[in-house]
This record gives sequence, structure tokens and C-alpha cells, in this order.
Amino acid sequence: MLRALDLAEALDEGDITPQAVLELCAEAIAAREAELGCFEHLDLDRARILAARRPKGPLGGLPVGMKDIIETAAMPTAYGVPAYRDNRPVADAPIVVMTEDAGGIVPGKTVTTELAFLNPPKTRNPHDPRRTPGGSSSGSAAAVAAGMLPLAFGSQTSGSVIRPASFCGVAAMKPSYRLLPISGVKPFAPLLDTLGLMGARVADVAFGLEAITGRPLRVDGQDFGTPTFGVTRMPFAGSAEPEAEAALRQAIHALGKAGASVVDVTLDDRFAAAHDAQRTISLYEAAQHLAFEHRRHPEALSPTLRAALDEGRAIPVAAFDAARSIANKARKATHALFEPIDVLLTYAAPGPAPLADTTGDPRFNRLVTLLGLPAVNVPGCRTDDGLPVGLQVVAAFGDDQRALAAAAFLERALAATSAA
Amino acid sequence: MLRALDLAEALDEGDITPQAVLELCAEAIAAREAELGCFEHLDLDRARILAARRPKGPLGGLPVGMKDIIETAAMPTAYGVPAYRDNRPVADAPIVVMTEDAGGIVPGKTVTTELAFLNPPKTRNPHDPRRTPGGSSSGSAAAVAAGMLPLAFGSQTSGSVIRPASFCGVAAMKPSYRLLPISGVKPFAPLLDTLGLMGARVADVAFGLEAITGRPLRVDGQDFGTPTFGVTRMPFAGSAEPEAEAALRQAIHALGKAGASVVDVTLDDRFAAAHDAQRTISLYEAAQHLAFEHRRHPEALSPTLRAALDEGRAIPVAAFDAARSIANKARKATHALFEPIDVLLTYAAPGPAPLADTTGDPRFNRLVTLLGLPAVNVPGCRTDDGLPVGLQVVAAFGDDQRALAAAAFLERALAATSAA
Repeated sequence: MLRALDLAEALDEGDITPQAVLELCAEAIAAREAELGCFEHLDLDRARILAARRPKGPLGGLPVGMKDIIETAAMPTAYGVPAYRDNRPVADAPIVVMTEDAGGIVPGKTVTTELAFLNPPKTRNPHDPRRTPGGSSSGSAAAVAAGMLPLAFGSQTSGSVIRPASFCGVAAMKPSYRLLPISGVKPFAPLLDTLGLMGARVADVAFGLEAITGRPLRVDGQDFGTPTFGVTRMPFAGSAEPEAEAALRQAIHALGKAGASVVDVTLDDRFAAAHDAQRTISLYEAAQHLAFEHRRHPEALSPTLRAALDEGRAIPVAAFDAARSIANKARKATHALFEPIDVLLTYAAPGPAPLADTTGDPRFNRLVTLLGLPAVNVPGCRTDDGLPVGLQVVAAFGDDQRALAAAAFLERALAATSAA
Repeated sequence: MLRALDLAEALDEGDITPQAVLELCAEAIAAREAELGCFEHLDLDRARILAARRPKGPLGGLPVGMKDIIETAAMPTAYGVPAYRDNRPVADAPIVVMTEDAGGIVPGKTVTTELAFLNPPKTRNPHDPRRTPGGSSSGSAAAVAAGMLPLAFGSQTSGSVIRPASFCGVAAMKPSYRLLPISGVKPFAPLLDTLGLMGARVADVAFGLEAITGRPLRVDGQDFGTPTFGVTRMPFAGSAEPEAEAALRQAIHALGKAGASVVDVTLDDRFAAAHDAQRTISLYEAAQHLAFEHRRHPEALSPTLRAALDEGRAIPVAAFDAARSIANKARKATHALFEPIDVLLTYAAPGPAPLADTTGDPRFNRLVTLLGLPAVNVPGCRTDDGLPVGLQVVAAFGDDQRALAAAAFLERALAATSAA
């Protein structure tokens, strides 16, 4: 994988040029794009022109992929819908301008599932092309995992950043709700929709987010101390597969060896109710925000999405309001939850990537997304077959740097025990 | 003016056809559009075809205008920017589909100021064409006031619904934050941006909002009791002109005669600080969300807007976060504020509509927008020159029907004292 932080340092010191970095991407794309299908649109010639201008800013010319629900004026934006193939928005989404202002170059749009829902797209998992990369940020996760991009944006409404990152073995962060501007991104359920960034390691993601937001988020070169981890298995979300449980145990073991405190945490009934409420909010809002596609062009939608929108439209407004009230109560309950711990540690996904007739299940991500909490996927564990299995580190609202620092701590701890 | 509620009842009873209602609009448009400039785009032929289909739903074929920052697939959406004249979004904004699902017909896009900021547009005030209709929802307010439309949507980031409604003498509501879906609407500052609806009387607006949202919001034909009004002059926002003060005194007098309790309310320092914070949040977010226009096409923007975005971009992220924290504290403080009262009563605007080289000042609307509270403009007062001066009625978050009911009470009280 291409390490954004190391490449940015080399760019800054003149040890490598933006053009050379872009050619590293181009080589990986040439090698595996036909097999993996990470891009909906790719414009390397335009990227080469931009790279030759030696962009200023902390990213210094690093390529950054954009999920194809993020609107771009210079490239089409199809939202994963074939009928929107030729859509050319008049303006870039704010996140695109912020990325370019920070010195990033957008070489292409990565594959999204249809309107960021569950229908499997063409993209395959670099670790086993029979398997899904996850969704809905399928192309971004697979492209980073295959070394095609050092950084790529995705978005998460239920589990669409953390789950594909787990399946593809990349680091990723879904920041606190609205830390990154969501406008110019096709909505699914605005009370949940959150942009996220993927990279090779936690420090790469943190570096990219600091560069783009101007907020203190980096975790390299600083000592954040030894965090206290609170472990939860979120029983209300259903069960994990043995491989995910093994990864969680491996993480707990590694943290103990690294000197961290690891305590068990129980998420009470308020959180169980909120987990259920996430589905209501997601489907109700999707039926409202995808109303044009649902009511005017249902024939352009997959049966899977159409059925979900039908279900969402049938939810009474009172049920939606009740779900929001449950969500608000659970959000308030997070304050006490994080008092004795720095972060939560839990599954990132139910198991390794399944076969590609699904994009997997977001059940361990729904609650965290609803609560708006910053969440990081920490790569580092593998199944016996070599498939990645990630771990999810979650901090209190607004504690994004703490989430990243604890995730980096876990990442180092896992590397130390694997090496031993 | 065209009364939506009465027309809908006549439509429902078959006393009038949707085509005939549309022709009422067409006549008013033919009479005064050249002078007033309410529409950015008008397609009466398409509207006639839709009217002939006799739309189902509670609106029963009523025409509803859409401010031209609201995206439509069937008509261009220029966001008040000449360079975007030919922009054709691929999808309707959710509010458009919801309006059509409720039986509404969208005959045209009403004039917005440039990107919903302050630069005066072509639209003029129907009560005195030398004067501004207010902004940024200029065309919607003027079109309703001139009898061209029974209902029209605007949006408010500082005071862009309540202020033009006050200047034009129409009823309007800015509902609680996010009661109406804002996606598909060009953002200015998403923490503030809120859609609002204008109509002839408070009951017309309430009827339209209930029809479109499916929420209980109507205030006709029900007894909501006698509300308690808490009067504030928001001294931290600056002073009102004599005409606005006279309207407030007239309202207090009318409420007393109608048997309502009217008490003085003091908004403490937390609210004064929040009033100031609104400007920081608005400009910081505008610089972020209009980044494409600001950084890539500054030459296409007015000097006024460019200067505001320059200022917004220079605001440090810590100052933005501090402003959000102030806003959150003030939002929490509203719970106690509304305990002894049903609604707040205050100025809707500093005075009557000024001349058309400005769109007026939103200083009595900024705080209410920041707090996300439902606010209603109540028409009924006039200056000696016959210019409308509105009053603002504000309820607690989520108490939208209470705000409408109290506003309707005040509207009736004013009519009773005017008639006496």
C-alpha cells in the first residue's frame, strides 16, 4: 500500500515528485484495475497536468480518491446509478475543494454501490477477487488496499466506511458527525450520512484528515500516553463470526502486552434501542431524500433498493420521531459511558469479507454511526486464509484525535505481537 | 392574495378546478411580473398540463413556487448566479417531490439573491416597487404578496424567510431546524439553512406545511386556547425603527384586548453571545460550502459576497468551534425560557421595506435561526404609508404547531382591533 504520511514527507523534502507518486498509482491501476474494478471514472491525464504544477499545501500533490457520490465539476458523478452516467454537477463538493486546497489531486471517482445502499457493485476485494470489498465505499477501500491510491474518501450511513476498510485491510476513519462537510454528496439519510477517509495506516488517515480540515488530528511523532479501552461485543447487534471474535481476542491480548488497561463495558438498553432506531431513521430518511428516484424513476433502481425505499416510505412520521428521540437519549448516555474509558473497542464487521454476491453486514457499525461518534478501523489481523479482519475503535463525540491515537496504539500493539 | 386553504377547500369540493386556480396565478403574473420580477424561470404551459391531470393529495393542484436555490429536474436551477443559468440538476430536491406528492404543482422558480446572500436581485416589493421585497427569498415573498402564487418556498440562514415576508405583508413560517429536508438545496451554512413556506395568512401556511409533511400543523377549525406571549426586543441585536416598535405595541395591545397574557421576557447573556455567534457560524460555513465558487470562480461572484467569503475563510477553526459551543449552550437555555410562556413575540424586521438598493437587515432573525426554533411572520400591521410591518412569533424547538396557533391568534387579534 502507498503510505500517505511517508509520501508527503518525501514530497516535502523533494525526495520524490508528485508526478512520480502519481505514476506509482498508475502502475498499480494498470496492474489490477481490470480485475478489481475500483474506479467509476479515472482521468490520469488530468491528474498528470495537476501533478506537474506541484500543488502547495500539506498533501503536496498526493492523489486522493473520491467516492462517486461526491460531486465533481471536472468529472462525471453517477451516484452508482447507470441512468446518471452523464451527470456533470456544476460545482465540486466542499470536500473536493478542501482536498485540493490542501494540495491533494483527485485522479478519479471510486465505485459506490447504487446510491450508497447495499446492492453489490463491480468492485472486488484485492485480497481475494471472489470476495466483496464491502460497501458502499467499495472502490475507495479496494483502491487503497491495492496500492492504487494513498488516500480515498468514502461515506457511511450504516457501516459503509468501517466495514469495507475491515474487509480490505486498510485503516479508515468515520469522524464525528459533521466534522467533514457533507454537502455536495448525494444524501441517503442526512441524520446519519458521514464522510470518511481511508489510508494504509491509522497515522496516514490522521495525517490526511489534519491536512484537509486544518484541525489537530495527526497522531505521528507525539506521545498520547496509554489509553484505557472498554470492550463491548454489542450483543444487541447479533453475533460475530469466529474470525472476528479471534481478532478481538488478539487485540485484547496485544493491548495487555502493550500495557494498556482493557475493561469490559456494558451498553445498556438505551443503546440497544438506539441500534434498532438506526434502521428506522435510515429507511425513513432514504425514502424522503431519494424521493425523486423512488417516485419518478423506480424502474432505474434495483429491486433491493426499491424494496428498502418502499419500506421507508411506509414508516409513519411518529415512528420516525420516536426513533430520533431514542437516538437523542442514547447520545446523551454516551457522556457517562466514556467517563471511565478513553475509547470503546469492538468488532469492525461480523467477520472477513464474504463472497461478492453481498457487500456484507453493517450490524456492528449502525449504533456508532447513529450516535455520531468518531470511529476508526484498525487493520492488522488476518484469518488463517490471509483475509483481513479489522477492529473498531470508537471515542466520545468530538474526541476524534483521541480515537485516532488509541487506534494507532492498537495498531502498534498488534504489529508488535505479530512480529514477536 | 390567493388563500391556499380556501382554494384547497374549493378544489376538494369541486367548486373550482386546478386549471382555474392556475389561471388566477397566470392573470396576476401577466399583470405585474414585468414590474416586480418575481420569477427566475416560469413554465405555465407545463403547469397547465399538470393541472389538467387533477393532482391528488391535500393540495389538490395548488401551485407552489420554489426559490431558485431548490433543485428541479424539469426546470433550470441557477442559485441566483448568472453563470449557472443553464444548470439542470438530474433530480428534484426532496421538498419538490414532497410538494408534488401532496398534490402541488410547481409552475416556476422564484428569484433568489445570489447564492442566498444579501446582494439585491431584480425583484421589487408589490406594495411599493421602489422598495425591496427583502431577501434572500425575494421572489417567493413578492409573488405571494402579488397574488401570483398561493404558496411559495423560501429558505433562511439569517433572516431570509421572515424578513421578506414582513416586508411584503405575507404570512410565513421557518419551521424547526430540519423539519423540512434541506438536501437538494444549494447550501450557504448548513448548521443554519432552513426551508420555509409563505402564504397569505398563517392558516394557509399551516395548511400547506401539514399537507406537505404529513405532520399535524394545521391551525384552522381548532381551538388551541389562549396563549401566553413573552415579549422581547432583543436589545443585543440593535434597535428597531419606530414603525416596527409601533407594530409591536399594536400587537401587545391587540393581544391584551383578545384576553391573552403578555409578559416581558429578558434574553440573558447566553442569547446575546449566541446572536453574535450566528455571524461567525454563517460566514465560516459559507466559505466552506461555497468553496467551489469562492476559490475556483471568484470572478463570477459579487464583491459583496466575495468579501463575506474572504472574511469567512479567515475565521480560525477554533473560533468556529467556540461559536458552535455558544450556540449549543443557548439552545439548552431555551428550555427554561419557554417554561412560563407559550411563545416569544418580537420584531420580524427592523422596520418596513427599505429602498431596493439593499434587501434589509436580518438582525432580529439571526438568533432564532441559530437556535433552530420555529418562527412565524404574522402580517397585519401597516405604516402610515401603507407598507406592511410583520411580527415574529417564536416557539420552543419542535413546537411548530404551537408557534402557528399563537401566530394565528395574534393575526386574528390584530384584525379585530383594526376592524374596530
